[in-house]
Amino acid sequence: MANVPVQRMSQLMAKTLRDDPADAEVLSHKLLVRAGYVRRTAAGIWSWLPLGKRVLANVERVVREEMDAIGAQEVLLPAILPREPYDATGRWDEYGPELFRLQDRKGGDYLLGPTHEEIFTLLVKDQASSYKDLPVILYQIQNKYRDEARPRAGILRGREFLMKDSYSFDTEDEGLAQSYALHREAYQRIFARLGLDYRICAATAGAMGGSKSEEFLAPAEAGEDTFADCPNCDFAANTEAITYELKPLDAADVPAAEDIPTPDTPTIETLAAHLGVPASATLKNLLVKVDGEIVAVGVPGDREVDMGKVEAHFAPAAVELVTETDFAARPDLVRGYVGPQGLDKVMYIADPRVAPGTAWITGANKAGTHAKNVVAGRDFEVGQYVDVVVVQEGDPCPKCGAGLVLDRAIEIGHIFQLGRKYADALKLDVLGQNGKPVRVTMGSYGIGVSRAVAALAEQSADDKGLCWPKEVAPADVHVVAAGKALQTELALDISGKLAAAGVRVLVDDRAGVSPGVKFTDSELIGVPQILVAGRRAADGVVELKDRRTGEREELTVEEAIARLTA
Amino acid sequence: MANVPVQRMSQLMAKTLRDDPADAEVLSHKLLVRAGYVRRTAAGIWSWLPLGKRVLANVERVVREEMDAIGAQEVLLPAILPREPYDATGRWDEYGPELFRLQDRKGGDYLLGPTHEEIFTLLVKDQASSYKDLPVILYQIQNKYRDEARPRAGILRGREFLMKDSYSFDTEDEGLAQSYALHREAYQRIFARLGLDYRICAATAGAMGGSKSEEFLAPAEAGEDTFADCPNCDFAANTEAITYELKPLDAADVPAAEDIPTPDTPTIETLAAHLGVPASATLKNLLVKVDGEIVAVGVPGDREVDMGKVEAHFAPAAVELVTETDFAARPDLVRGYVGPQGLDKVMYIADPRVAPGTAWITGANKAGTHAKNVVAGRDFEVGQYVDVVVVQEGDPCPKCGAGLVLDRAIEIGHIFQLGRKYADALKLDVLGQNGKPVRVTMGSYGIGVSRAVAALAEQSADDKGLCWPKEVAPADVHVVAAGKALQTELALDISGKLAAAGVRVLVDDRAGVSPGVKFTDSELIGVPQILVAGRRAADGVVELKDRRTGEREELTVEEAIARLTA
Repeated sequence: MANVPVQRMSQLMAKTLRDDPADAEVLSHKLLVRAGYVRRTAAGIWSWLPLGKRVLANVERVVREEMDAIGAQEVLLPAILPREPYDATGRWDEYGPELFRLQDRKGGDYLLGPTHEEIFTLLVKDQASSYKDLPVILYQIQNKYRDEARPRAGILRGREFLMKDSYSFDTEDEGLAQSYALHREAYQRIFARLGLDYRICAATAGAMGGSKSEEFLAPAEAGEDTFADCPNCDFAANTEAITYELKPLDAADVPAAEDIPTPDTPTIETLAAHLGVPASATLKNLLVKVDGEIVAVGVPGDREVDMGKVEAHFAPAAVELVTETDFAARPDLVRGYVGPQGLDKVMYIADPRVAPGTAWITGANKAGTHAKNVVAGRDFEVGQYVDVVVVQEGDPCPKCGAGLVLDRAIEIGHIFQLGRKYADALKLDVLGQNGKPVRVTMGSYGIGVSRAVAALAEQSADDKGLCWPKEVAPADVHVVAAGKALQTELALDISGKLAAAGVRVLVDDRAGVSPGVKFTDSELIGVPQILVAGRRAADGVVELKDRRTGEREELTVEEAIARLTA
Repeated sequence: MANVPVQRMSQLMAKTLRDDPADAEVLSHKLLVRAGYVRRTAAGIWSWLPLGKRVLANVERVVREEMDAIGAQEVLLPAILPREPYDATGRWDEYGPELFRLQDRKGGDYLLGPTHEEIFTLLVKDQASSYKDLPVILYQIQNKYRDEARPRAGILRGREFLMKDSYSFDTEDEGLAQSYALHREAYQRIFARLGLDYRICAATAGAMGGSKSEEFLAPAEAGEDTFADCPNCDFAANTEAITYELKPLDAADVPAAEDIPTPDTPTIETLAAHLGVPASATLKNLLVKVDGEIVAVGVPGDREVDMGKVEAHFAPAAVELVTETDFAARPDLVRGYVGPQGLDKVMYIADPRVAPGTAWITGANKAGTHAKNVVAGRDFEVGQYVDVVVVQEGDPCPKCGAGLVLDRAIEIGHIFQLGRKYADALKLDVLGQNGKPVRVTMGSYGIGVSRAVAALAEQSADDKGLCWPKEVAPADVHVVAAGKALQTELALDISGKLAAAGVRVLVDDRAGVSPGVKFTDSELIGVPQILVAGRRAADGVVELKDRRTGEREELTVEEAIARLTA
């Protein structure tokens, strides 16, 4: 450990605040601002103050060491990127308003990189010519840019954020699987060292493309992702990635479909109440427009449609809800009474729960009328089965059937087997063993470095403030001079001795600040160990406090130094 | 030193090239590309490959350690910045096309920071309330952005580049002088540790504003700055910053001015030849337009006008040369025969060499006619004395009078006493000791981190390739397996032992590459020590070569390991 100079709080640019910032909703945002770790510069754009920068650098160091350990090579690519490669893969357009675009003085188009698949692909295309040059894993730790519609939650979801992104290049699928496994293990070591509680969850690839992907989710109330955990087996998945198995039924015994009068029942609630059946017996048909074409989405009446899943299914096409105008233009679509039977010129997709052979009560495409005994595959055809429902607490585990538990979490890492999507778009080949060109297969792997700081703050904080795990804390010990000149002198003397032994010290030597305020600040700032030079300073006795447990112990100065340098 | 894994060249993403890249003009550009340290991604936008990233990280580390040692606090501010603070100081407009500007999805204006005075000023305004909170020095190491008109010379002048920028905040002028001195000393330590040859030169503040500034210039042919060095005393200055002292003469004995016919002498050369006088006896008057107003600039006939100095003097006003149209509109300005005597509605500025009492041959404002014995201060008035001439080799040293020597150099650092320009614009006050607000005074200090890599490459390269100083080299030793399996096995074995002892090793274990190519590559890559496992590998004998001197020595494996781990 390098000998870092003692940081004196009398000189530290980190003003603590008594009150939560007015715009802060989540714990990490409140605490990181109050404890003087970060400050907002613009919406979703943050400044890291000295203590925050230290934590960030600690996370970076752990990530770098573990990436180096799997043989990944660190590089640094530009943050400002030319448009052309993103045109080649279609992402210049697909990214939509989330991409920061700009022009240079000559009118050339550039973007601020949200992620760098294209540029790494081109780099390897320039550098590697033979299968002998592969496999290779490249990584960088760099600011990324995404123009979020609603930047929120402090550094959890910023528009400029620090990320470790890495990319693997292999000639064979087995090689990709191995590069992926190396990353998965490295990520496990990284998050364990950081002291983060996390789950590895099956995930959807989303706009990134590719086949297999998993997320590393850190459970936290402030999280924007919901994941399902099985209490009975090892299954865990982002709810977005959970798909229900299609289980066809035999509908031979179901009577023929028939219309039933159901006046004034345009909603599932009114319909179920009117008929005295559970909502789960009804089939709800939501109408959306996909690039302007009407699509009906069928789900059991007791389930909600997850619009994120619908959008992901049709991406990059734009998905909107239908409007009054759309209904006016299509009198055959009777609002509140739509049913899949007899629908014309409407694509029909349905959740797997609407499996062939299942029977439903659904709209009869006539005002005030529904139909019962409407059987999927007999009375109507499902164009495509797509899992689009919101996963609910208690839904069966896809692996063992036990009821799933849902939790909020922060996505701190994501690993993808991209396959050949980018290599195809940018024509990345190397000469294979047989002398013929081989298309390269890729993986893409990210860790939100700045987001990990927020996740750590969320998970480790208590009601007194931040409480950092040792490996990421901005200092090893927070020395508090609680008293007058005598205590300050002792605190500085101990600090100097500790620093000389390689201990990272933050010392509160502020004059004119009461011991009470200093104690409160030390708990807010959250360095793991707090050493107080107080009442018994004259006797050479100090108090060592564990920030997390609150346990205190009186020690002589020599004992304290010995303990802290052990 | 951390235990960095052995880097095997068989897996290294760093393809060496036999030929210089077609677009490369300067040595560092050629070598850094050829040796696989950097690759161009777009005009003025570069990617750092693994070896380059290591050198860059080494420079960063040295900078960080020395900044920490003067008590500077590391922070990290955004690279994407809101427009408003740059409007407040006027720099949003003043920067002109050099500023990368962009809009977010809501149409808000942002810029990519070229330097961060405004944002640091606002940060300290938020954080510091009392004189007790100062002095403070904050720094960051971060990508900066400038949309250069002609990005050139590889990483020497890129549009995205890595910089250490720091800012000092003091209440008193003496405090600023001390913060400035701390930086000056830290910079001396940094550049010495990096192994850079440099001069500290007086400089102009330019668009940055402020009173005092010095540049750290690294002599190199590829440099874009010219500096003057006195062979007799310690004077050194950027030629842009050299000003000639005004020395008035007694003109009592000079006869009255009189016109002389000088047909067909519209240039200084034709005039001097016609009259048989040296060009230095004549006064040249250059006409320019400053924001549309005509200004005449007088300099001795043997000197060139430095348009950069003229522009700096009038900045931020735009300076252009006059055109045919301008002459047509002003028949009183006779092209080739302009003289300062009797000029009407024209501002006249002159070089200090045109001091009061000096007598000149100059235009008589009539075609084919000049005037002689035209005395400054008697026959015409100089509106303002401004040093605007191009400094020439042999010009007198402003300090001791000896003839100056001129050299090209790369600007690797710049330190400024800004004073209160930014604090005034953004109203940065703290409460003073007397309880009244005090306006803060600032300094601004930069080191071009990526540019320092180029400067190091320029200064240390020889005809074989790069040749890094130890502290910044991408590895401590380059182990070359020159032979078959036996040599490769030995090379890898030695590499493992060295790495275990904390030595950073690059090992050339490439199969199917001849020893000759490996030797050439090792010299191109420029690691300070090269260890060859070659002919005598079977006897346990290797060769240790000093990259710079070329000295070779045969050693047993044990001796070599002992030497390299000493």
